[in-house]
Amino acid sequence: MSTVVFSGGVGAARFLSGLVQAIDPTEITVVSNVGDDSVFWGLYVCPDIDIVIYTLAGLINQKTGWGLTDDTFTTLRELHALGEDTWFNLGDRDLATQIYRTNLLGQGLPLSEITARLTKARGLACKILPATDDRLETRFLTPDGELAFQEYMVKRSWKVPIQKVIFKGADVSRPAPGVLDAIASADRILFAPSNPFISIGTILAVPGIRQALLDAKAPVAAVSPIVGGQAIKGPAADLMRDFGYEVSAYGVAQVYRDLVDLLVIDQQDTALLPKIQALGLNAIATDTMMTSPERKKQLAADVINAVDAL
Amino acid sequence: MSTVVFSGGVGAARFLSGLVQAIDPTEITVVSNVGDDSVFWGLYVCPDIDIVIYTLAGLINQKTGWGLTDDTFTTLRELHALGEDTWFNLGDRDLATQIYRTNLLGQGLPLSEITARLTKARGLACKILPATDDRLETRFLTPDGELAFQEYMVKRSWKVPIQKVIFKGADVSRPAPGVLDAIASADRILFAPSNPFISIGTILAVPGIRQALLDAKAPVAAVSPIVGGQAIKGPAADLMRDFGYEVSAYGVAQVYRDLVDLLVIDQQDTALLPKIQALGLNAIATDTMMTSPERKKQLAADVINAVDAL
Repeated sequence: MSTVVFSGGVGAARFLSGLVQAIDPTEITVVSNVGDDSVFWGLYVCPDIDIVIYTLAGLINQKTGWGLTDDTFTTLRELHALGEDTWFNLGDRDLATQIYRTNLLGQGLPLSEITARLTKARGLACKILPATDDRLETRFLTPDGELAFQEYMVKRSWKVPIQKVIFKGADVSRPAPGVLDAIASADRILFAPSNPFISIGTILAVPGIRQALLDAKAPVAAVSPIVGGQAIKGPAADLMRDFGYEVSAYGVAQVYRDLVDLLVIDQQDTALLPKIQALGLNAIATDTMMTSPERKKQLAADVINAVDAL
Repeated sequence: MSTVVFSGGVGAARFLSGLVQAIDPTEITVVSNVGDDSVFWGLYVCPDIDIVIYTLAGLINQKTGWGLTDDTFTTLRELHALGEDTWFNLGDRDLATQIYRTNLLGQGLPLSEITARLTKARGLACKILPATDDRLETRFLTPDGELAFQEYMVKRSWKVPIQKVIFKGADVSRPAPGVLDAIASADRILFAPSNPFISIGTILAVPGIRQALLDAKAPVAAVSPIVGGQAIKGPAADLMRDFGYEVSAYGVAQVYRDLVDLLVIDQQDTALLPKIQALGLNAIATDTMMTSPERKKQLAADVINAVDAL
């Protein structure tokens, strides 16, 4: 039973860490957002891919949700001493990944091949595919001008209203090798509890992926990243508001209504089920909070059971 | 009184740390060997330039002679965990320099401009010029085949006879901006106690530099890197033997006889003075061991006094 998971960063990584406990990890293919990939000091950083790899390898810094556990920031401090602006945190262990990746990109290897090597080096059993090997940059049009992804997320802490999300390069990007095949041959397709606009939406901005999803024989299920009217993490709630959606699991259902067969929402939003079902979607409510390994595994099992029952 | 110093790595850095005490550092221009520059994981490493900068900035690891004091090797260990071969030691602080330099090279800045920025960032008053902004790779022809510089120096610890030194790229290299002018307008030109073949010799392999030296109005003095028949550090003695020279300050005089006006040798080699002078060279013997800040400063003062007396 092959399972494809569209994935962003922290929320997706937590969901996946439950999923690899609930089902055979060798049958999981992660399709990762790459729109927040950024270049710092010439080093090519893939935050979402790294967060997923570090999390599944048990190396993630649990406190921050990004970076490696017990990391130090010696190189960053020295770059600061050299006069560099060091608002983007890259630890010494983390830098090894970025140096490794940048070196191989410089040798002409595609991101998908490098990601496969990193996945293997970390001993992971699942497959992780970038949505595209081409450069696709998520950018934000704001009243203060256009911002790069990490400028919005890290430097500004998403405290600026968004007029428009721009997927720079998306129009000429191609799905990475294996992405369309994985979607077409999947038995289940899941949207992790990630940002509908700048994680899942970015993946769908790669020409061919949305159509592959619509054509897929497999049922598609999404886990709502909005619980009790709030985003668990990140700017999902802010973006929904900026784009005129209700900030709730119902709003998520509206965003996803043409794409998914099933929406999994949190138990505290149970009252929203009829309204979501009235949109023509299947929906279940369960515990989506993922605050322990057990709850992560249980959520994954609940999602699998519900999507297999469709 | 402008002073130009042809410079290799550790020995030159020690000599320069005395020289900046003995004379006005703003009047010193270092012309650095770049032949041992190497690329590791896509990062462009300039060992000689860095050793000089770190030493003059008081940051050098005194025990090893390379790298930064109190450095850690977290990134390197993580690269090893990713399956990389990590025989070349680059500490976390050191990596900041390499990332900074590689990033700016990637943006199209010449090495000389980047070196000027690094020199300024470290608060140094002297000027440091790479011999060339072009890629010039010192390589070694050995019975085991051709070796790159760091393969010979670090991986093999120079325990292999050298049939020939190859300056790859030298024929099409050009002196970095400022090098020829500095030589032409110098009041003194010094060869630091560096390797005559693969430090000073590499600088002289850049077309135009040897001729500029021969045409210079300034007297040229060299400090012998061979003391008591041995090299203070590195493969200078081995290379002299491989190339058929006597391993002594006299051998150094033979190598340099057409280039320098004065050879400064160690006091323990005083007996060699007549033999060296018989080659037509001026020569003095003094304490060249540089084992303390005072002895470094004194050596620099002795060299300056002797060259100014010519």
